[in-house]
Amino acid sequence: MTEYKYDVTMSCGGCSGAVTKALNKLEGVDKFDVSLEKQRVVVESSTLNQDEILAAIKKTGKAAKVATD
Amino acid sequence: MTEYKYDVTMSCGGCSGAVTKALNKLEGVDKFDVSLEKQRVVVESSTLNQDEILAAIKKTGKAAKVATD
Repeated sequence: MTEYKYDVTMSCGGCSGAVTKALNKLEGVDKFDVSLEKQRVVVESSTLNQDEILAAIKKTGKAAKVATD
Repeated sequence: MTEYKYDVTMSCGGCSGAVTKALNKLEGVDKFDVSLEKQRVVVESSTLNQDEILAAIKKTGKAAKVATD
């Protein structure tokens, strides 16, 4: 299991809800947390890689990048 | 060219921006308008059908349905 962190621009509950919905639907996600307050999305997966998860988040139309901290 | 109308739940500029981004990327869209105020998305296309456009909007994680008015 690997943990991946992303900075995602989310302005309201509708934004974070959209990301939550996308991750709920994404096959291979074991656990995740979407924080509107921290503008941070943390995803745990054994089968998906960093870029695959990033692509799924970006499909929501949100600006997203791999977190460096 | 056919005009399609959808009711889309968008709570802030980030929400409507996400839908705008998705429609900008969608091949076959000739023209579109996203109204946060009206919770309404109008799309003109000659090649896409109603369901294809709805599916693209839903990929953003927003609740969306074909408008009946």
